[in-house]
Amino acid sequence: MTDSSQPTGAAAFESAHRLSGGRPDLTAIDPHGKPAFDGDKKAGKKALAGLGDELADLQERLFATRAVGARHRILLVLQGMDTSGKGGTLRHTVGLVDPQGVAITSFKAPTEEELAHDFLWRIRRALPEPGFVGVFDRSHYEDVLIARVRELADPAELERRYDAINDFEAELVDQGTVVVKCMLHISAEEQRERLLARLDDPTKHWKFNPGDIDERRVWPAYREAYEIALERTHTEVAPWYVIPGDRKWYRNLAVGHLLLGALQRLDLQWPEADFDVAEQRARLVAEEPVA
Amino acid sequence: MTDSSQPTGAAAFESAHRLSGGRPDLTAIDPHGKPAFDGDKKAGKKALAGLGDELADLQERLFATRAVGARHRILLVLQGMDTSGKGGTLRHTVGLVDPQGVAITSFKAPTEEELAHDFLWRIRRALPEPGFVGVFDRSHYEDVLIARVRELADPAELERRYDAINDFEAELVDQGTVVVKCMLHISAEEQRERLLARLDDPTKHWKFNPGDIDERRVWPAYREAYEIALERTHTEVAPWYVIPGDRKWYRNLAVGHLLLGALQRLDLQWPEADFDVAEQRARLVAEEPVA
Repeated sequence: MTDSSQPTGAAAFESAHRLSGGRPDLTAIDPHGKPAFDGDKKAGKKALAGLGDELADLQERLFATRAVGARHRILLVLQGMDTSGKGGTLRHTVGLVDPQGVAITSFKAPTEEELAHDFLWRIRRALPEPGFVGVFDRSHYEDVLIARVRELADPAELERRYDAINDFEAELVDQGTVVVKCMLHISAEEQRERLLARLDDPTKHWKFNPGDIDERRVWPAYREAYEIALERTHTEVAPWYVIPGDRKWYRNLAVGHLLLGALQRLDLQWPEADFDVAEQRARLVAEEPVA
Repeated sequence: MTDSSQPTGAAAFESAHRLSGGRPDLTAIDPHGKPAFDGDKKAGKKALAGLGDELADLQERLFATRAVGARHRILLVLQGMDTSGKGGTLRHTVGLVDPQGVAITSFKAPTEEELAHDFLWRIRRALPEPGFVGVFDRSHYEDVLIARVRELADPAELERRYDAINDFEAELVDQGTVVVKCMLHISAEEQRERLLARLDDPTKHWKFNPGDIDERRVWPAYREAYEIALERTHTEVAPWYVIPGDRKWYRNLAVGHLLLGALQRLDLQWPEADFDVAEQRARLVAEEPVA
């Protein structure tokens, strides 16, 4: 990263983690890597904290555009195996911006009502309003991941879903949404350590589900499902980023930069006043005491 | 606060700001006061930051109770005149806890669809799920505040609404919700300063609405509407707190303590594992490599 021709800031993380198209080989992406950052954990945490002011400023600008009827919004999609750090990313990275402007939806196994509708029905209902940073903790991608691995949908339906997802995301982008899709990529060994750590700590038992071990045992099938989904739904308008997740601090820093880059691309300006500032000031200055 | 018989921590703020019943006289409550805290602004900000760990721990326990089917939730209601600091409280106080466990709803002027229903319809739809800290930035109280001042409802309907609110909140409490109602109490002079500051700063123009000055001109009518609403809806199960709001740091600290007190009263324990920890550990330790 010392070569001055290399991208820096958000562009460095985008360029390091954006898929290039075709079927990705997840075994070739090091979950322990930190290719867009030269420093250690301490420096990485400091760098993340250092993003806070700019993230908060841009998020407030985004929120302000609501007032003038703009339709911009961010949709950050977080996908990954159990313990890959979706929750930690929410806390440490998304937690850097004003909670007023954030709308988080955690998708669980679909309810009976949700199953009675098309898989995108519940997703559409959860879309952020204009001005918001929406975050999906799991998403419509579960419907081509666990659905593929556990054969909850037949092959023709899976095919239909990849296309439906691409159409849906293109529609969102057309409406002014910036879609940022992150796969948090951890190693099976790291997952084992994290699951063991949950078992060792009684305050973490509520996060542990014996079913997580069953899912883990079909890890190669999930890897394949991810690789297919990433290939089929990595588009120019809604690209995928694969974020190495074994180092929590790097994962947080990388997602922070992707969020920053998304906000920067909107080139958000503070809305112009739709009133005469001097006139309003005069009203306030001249007024009789009101209380 | 040096008298050792005085309450400390959350209890000190609750005792200082909880209404005692009957018609409150808001002119007798100093908006610049800081009765539950001895220190200055710097110490107050430090004290608020110092609440962060305990708030985050208790909020996570609350969230964890979802996993075992508990029905507890917090509903923090923020009311106050324009610029009274509802947004700042969200950012600085509510922002201390994990955004995953927070559900914020900002109520604006009702839509046509909302107006076609009873005033509590949109409120019920926005209630937090069990395990969440829900925050209402404005609330059903607008329907007895602006509705009274601007005669959007006739006197009989207003009477009905006070009773309906009490029934509704009692129902919430019966269901396991802790309801914390805060009126952020600022002086008219402080509001004028804050409105002028918004006019002076182009990055704040989007927050300014000329209609705010019109509302300000009927300040005494709002004060009366608040006093009546506070009297009619201050109940044992869902009491009101009037928080001095002229000092932003004190307001944040006070609401932080009320939120802390609400969480403490739930006496939240980490859920017991519903699986055999040793058995799950053995499954993980003994397994063949999965990837």
